[in-house]
Amino acid sequence: MRESEECKKILENKAMFKMASPEFMDKLVQSAHLHNAGKGKVLFIHQDTADKFYIVVSGWVKLFRETLDGAQAVVDILPAGHIFGETSIFENDSYPYSAEAVEPSVIMSLPLSLLKQEIEDNPKLALAMLSAMARYRKQQDREIEHRTLQNASQRIGCFLLRLADQEATGPITIHLPYDKTLVASRLGMQPETFSRALGKLKDATGIKVKGATVELKSLDQLIDYSCSACSSEFPCHDLNA
Amino acid sequence: MRESEECKKILENKAMFKMASPEFMDKLVQSAHLHNAGKGKVLFIHQDTADKFYIVVSGWVKLFRETLDGAQAVVDILPAGHIFGETSIFENDSYPYSAEAVEPSVIMSLPLSLLKQEIEDNPKLALAMLSAMARYRKQQDREIEHRTLQNASQRIGCFLLRLADQEATGPITIHLPYDKTLVASRLGMQPETFSRALGKLKDATGIKVKGATVELKSLDQLIDYSCSACSSEFPCHDLNA
Repeated sequence: MRESEECKKILENKAMFKMASPEFMDKLVQSAHLHNAGKGKVLFIHQDTADKFYIVVSGWVKLFRETLDGAQAVVDILPAGHIFGETSIFENDSYPYSAEAVEPSVIMSLPLSLLKQEIEDNPKLALAMLSAMARYRKQQDREIEHRTLQNASQRIGCFLLRLADQEATGPITIHLPYDKTLVASRLGMQPETFSRALGKLKDATGIKVKGATVELKSLDQLIDYSCSACSSEFPCHDLNA
Repeated sequence: MRESEECKKILENKAMFKMASPEFMDKLVQSAHLHNAGKGKVLFIHQDTADKFYIVVSGWVKLFRETLDGAQAVVDILPAGHIFGETSIFENDSYPYSAEAVEPSVIMSLPLSLLKQEIEDNPKLALAMLSAMARYRKQQDREIEHRTLQNASQRIGCFLLRLADQEATGPITIHLPYDKTLVASRLGMQPETFSRALGKLKDATGIKVKGATVELKSLDQLIDYSCSACSSEFPCHDLNA
């Protein structure tokens, strides 16, 4: 498939662009580029001047910040389909975090200037973006809630459920990044705490973990365990589209 | 001052409404009402149908959710000046949390339908709201970061700095809600952890706590202590306007 056709297909499927004008979509497709990013490739640094936003086409991207003390906080680890860097247009055009490919990845880059212009011209896109931001805000609220109310094993279960196809019935396989210390830091845990909690989760629910894949007989194995300590019902309708 | 004049003054000072049309502001002022809410008054419940949004005029409002297990997660405690309930328009018109006055408070209520209409009609208001949401998103990112990287005393210091006038030089007094267990739960701490950490913060920085007020010789007392374990520089330019 040609680059532009592949980009077009991906962009048309993003909820955020459902309300965009055809002219804008044409321009966006024309200026989209696919990049191969090796493991460890830094895409941008926190507070860099932002002129592009990105979509993960395949692989995993880590968003993170560093404190004055030199410690690193992982804001998120994004699988395929996720947009990042787009909120820079509300941050005086500077990135609110750093981004790094943590496995060999394919990344689509898109110009922020186009998005900015279309949001100003097309109230429907602004509304779609507001809805996306409200969803994200709710997810973060829940993340803060879970750090208080869920134990470590429940939080791992919740993280897995969020990576799964939540409509699936029957057996399901969930893919994780290969580097488990990444998942641990995304969940705000020390690697040892993560290992212990994953062991406890396996014992309690019967899920099977083989390297970077997790196998479940059904989602119910995790739902019963994790969702009782959450203020929302499963499925999580507020997940990013 | 008449109710409508008082409401007008408050609404005109909100960053979110700087870009609103004069016609909209007139309608908003006409439909604004001030309510006295006693301590413990519940303003709305998580997932109630949302037809109003609110501004804290004085007092303190707690936003919270309850899990299926019956545990309570405090999403935020809002002092005067803060808007809440407004994102319900992106949540299928249902409130994403419950709200309760935790001290005798004055609350302004405003119809969501007006806000919804103006956001659809006026791209500038949609943009202003997007900026406000992006700021809030960044604050939440930081909250998640701090739960991982700051110790309990640093987090209390950070919470106090966010309640202070960050441009102040010289001595400063910060007001807290009377109920310290609330502050503890807002910070995701057990009351005992909070007491110990506050004691440690007093010893390390020399701040004075008397009931619900905190006295500082200068903000620097807290900045040196808390902001070294944060990825942003002081002052926090991303604070809610």
